[in-house]
Amino acid sequence: MALFLIGLGLGNIKDITLAGLELAKQASVVYLEHYTSAYGSSPQDIEAVIGKFVRLAFRQDLEQKMADLIEEARGQDVALLVVGDVFSATTHIALYLEARKAGVPVRVVFNASIMTAVGLTGLELYKFGKTTSIPFRSKGAASTPYAVIAQNKAIGLHTLCLLDLELDHPEEKRFMTIPQAIDILLAEEQTQHLGAISEQTVAIGCARLGQDDAAIKTGTLGSLAQLDFGGPLHCLIIPGTLHFVEEEALEMWR
Amino acid sequence: MALFLIGLGLGNIKDITLAGLELAKQASVVYLEHYTSAYGSSPQDIEAVIGKFVRLAFRQDLEQKMADLIEEARGQDVALLVVGDVFSATTHIALYLEARKAGVPVRVVFNASIMTAVGLTGLELYKFGKTTSIPFRSKGAASTPYAVIAQNKAIGLHTLCLLDLELDHPEEKRFMTIPQAIDILLAEEQTQHLGAISEQTVAIGCARLGQDDAAIKTGTLGSLAQLDFGGPLHCLIIPGTLHFVEEEALEMWR
Repeated sequence: MALFLIGLGLGNIKDITLAGLELAKQASVVYLEHYTSAYGSSPQDIEAVIGKFVRLAFRQDLEQKMADLIEEARGQDVALLVVGDVFSATTHIALYLEARKAGVPVRVVFNASIMTAVGLTGLELYKFGKTTSIPFRSKGAASTPYAVIAQNKAIGLHTLCLLDLELDHPEEKRFMTIPQAIDILLAEEQTQHLGAISEQTVAIGCARLGQDDAAIKTGTLGSLAQLDFGGPLHCLIIPGTLHFVEEEALEMWR
Repeated sequence: MALFLIGLGLGNIKDITLAGLELAKQASVVYLEHYTSAYGSSPQDIEAVIGKFVRLAFRQDLEQKMADLIEEARGQDVALLVVGDVFSATTHIALYLEARKAGVPVRVVFNASIMTAVGLTGLELYKFGKTTSIPFRSKGAASTPYAVIAQNKAIGLHTLCLLDLELDHPEEKRFMTIPQAIDILLAEEQTQHLGAISEQTVAIGCARLGQDDAAIKTGTLGSLAQLDFGGPLHCLIIPGTLHFVEEEALEMWR
């Protein structure tokens, strides 16, 4: 009896691994983190592939009912399916650690993560510094992401900015767009005046990385702020010092 | 006609995704990067799963014959299977960029990477700074990895140190162990005296992450240098500032 934490990858249910599929089929109970507005397969599609009924779980529920979930896995195999990679969110790390502490065996099935899928831009993954998240204005200030960008840039490193989305209200399908993120960051520059970014800063906007209709665009923040990148999820990369191979790669996306 | 770059994940051939398997079956020619000393499945096992003959390619050959490979993909579907994630090595990024420049369609199948599998330690992935590689003494100095550790640590970030291996001489199965890496780093500290690390620095040694017999150990560099972590691959994490949840997680591996 064990808890299976299974990454689904970024695109659709075909991105599950053979090992992940095997464990999902083996589990007596399968939860799916409700995050499908940014995934190419519906819960029904996922059920069709794993041949089993799937219970939707909001992240908030996972956090509040973590102990229940772990106890459930003591008596039977319980799987939690997570879009992307398992360790993309602190909730999943906490679940993993708590289960281990409770003596419940955990099996983790790794998968692709947005943190490495950004390699598609041609930027060197090794040269990314700390990752940051930009919250909606209603939920927090942008002082932290702005500071992270400034800090990474000062030592030549790229910054991956993950953009907020309302996980627990998928019916609203509320997700931050690249132009919104740029507005927030430029406003923060106006407040802090560290010169970390300006409208002329060249950046890379990525949408739906890992999906068939992924979009990548290079341009100044001023120009990217005018573009429609389509559906979720979006992320924004502020590059640090570019190697000439990276510069050449970025030209592809202009 | 296209080039398929397919990540195999970290453990064994069961870590291929359904999409990756489908494309490998569809391809007329399948290359496997010869890297299997650190992967749980042999080329024969991989052939059995994809139902097709697989040609072994050394990384050096990939670099030298990149243009040939791209031309080959103009006339037929060509797949390259890569252990881990596709963008883990500059060779694969170059291949991807060159193929695009040559007008040959490329499909990328992402998979798990060591860069995110380190999440298993309980360290927050967002808090990793620049990644570094420690070369064998015969191949280069450790001044760069040491400087990266010092720089990341100064701003509170974790450093993932990837350890050298001889990709192109798999018959030697030569890979750097955690004790070897620690010796190299401590010697560099003796040279540079920046105080970035000492024998008392707490670090995390990981072996075979993503495989069934993965090992993770927390301890001082002095104590980790005495341990046998078993077979490849090994990596070493020098943590930055730890959140209490991270500290608690690291206790699990003492």
